[in-house]
Amino acid sequence: MQVAIPLYDGMTALDAIGPYDVLGRLPGATVVFTGEWTGTVRNDLGNEVLTVEKVFAEVSSPDIVLVPGGTDVLSHVDDDAEILSWLRTVDATTTWTTSVCTGALILAKAGLLTGRRATTHWASTDTLARLGAVPVAERVVTDGKYVTGAGVSAGLDLALTLVGIIAGDQVAEAIQLGIEYDPEPPYQAGSVAKAAPELVAFVREFLKPVHPM
Amino acid sequence: MQVAIPLYDGMTALDAIGPYDVLGRLPGATVVFTGEWTGTVRNDLGNEVLTVEKVFAEVSSPDIVLVPGGTDVLSHVDDDAEILSWLRTVDATTTWTTSVCTGALILAKAGLLTGRRATTHWASTDTLARLGAVPVAERVVTDGKYVTGAGVSAGLDLALTLVGIIAGDQVAEAIQLGIEYDPEPPYQAGSVAKAAPELVAFVREFLKPVHPM
Repeated sequence: MQVAIPLYDGMTALDAIGPYDVLGRLPGATVVFTGEWTGTVRNDLGNEVLTVEKVFAEVSSPDIVLVPGGTDVLSHVDDDAEILSWLRTVDATTTWTTSVCTGALILAKAGLLTGRRATTHWASTDTLARLGAVPVAERVVTDGKYVTGAGVSAGLDLALTLVGIIAGDQVAEAIQLGIEYDPEPPYQAGSVAKAAPELVAFVREFLKPVHPM
Repeated sequence: MQVAIPLYDGMTALDAIGPYDVLGRLPGATVVFTGEWTGTVRNDLGNEVLTVEKVFAEVSSPDIVLVPGGTDVLSHVDDDAEILSWLRTVDATTTWTTSVCTGALILAKAGLLTGRRATTHWASTDTLARLGAVPVAERVVTDGKYVTGAGVSAGLDLALTLVGIIAGDQVAEAIQLGIEYDPEPPYQAGSVAKAAPELVAFVREFLKPVHPM
């Protein structure tokens, strides 16, 4: 079972690597990091730490595709971006087509979420709707073979959910224990529902230039 | 403020990238991924997705060091490994010296945790003690400027804790909301305390060859 994770300039590294370290532990799975060119991409914090292993043309029939998001994703993925045509092509034969965070905007822009229930980063809900999907304010949303996760860190919950569906609860639990995923956030500000309204306003304002509505 | 994250063959990618996407959002911080050579490292799942940006010699005075772990870390970091001498050198001037998962074994092997309270992946507690530290079964452990996190995913909690200490609660909460860190694990098997005993035994047996006691 091949899991393909496309990398691109402007992406958020954790969107890819969180679910990677879960899906990559699925027995029988191999992960390939793919992209438009071989070599590094420059992520949304400016580091060149992630590297494409195989270009899109070499990854033609993955079983699972997982699209990471990025802080300013739509300015990096224009209408002609190769990732869009690659996604349309491989989606025809995937078992699961998935995204984390604003990766859902890329799936939607590729036309793959039209009319489907999906989730994304909380600050990009309106953009997701504008691109034709039906936003749902849940951490992981499944609509047929399309599974989307909320912002950044939700990729862990998405990947464990997917492993449970594919390989059963015991495998998912073994991976959860293996990565000691027993979260103890030192603060309780991780969602719009839990954070103080003024904090939500502050972060929304901070993100506005890059999460255009 | 410079944050240095050393990369090496056999490491776990998420150990580095989880805390990276928190610390990298700290105002005024820049992160550099360093290592023995430039180019990719081969992680513990066999992928070459992480890339060293600057070699150790170019990263001589980071303010924060964060050492990721790996599934079989001690077989990859022998007594002469360059990472050990680099850690001893830079630790003399760091503000914070930190680790995630079995990264604590590397810090201990460098002699930096002797007699100090520290944590690591649950399956490596005995090894940490053998290397001279005082294991504590907590998710994040602080002893002076040494801050250690439990297995893999604990890097997120460690990094948010550190941001709170450095920049205050509001900055930490803004970053938590920015990465939508409101975990909803679909299973409750993320720690030895919560997982079924037979699951713990299974995972411990699975990891035994690579977490030697």
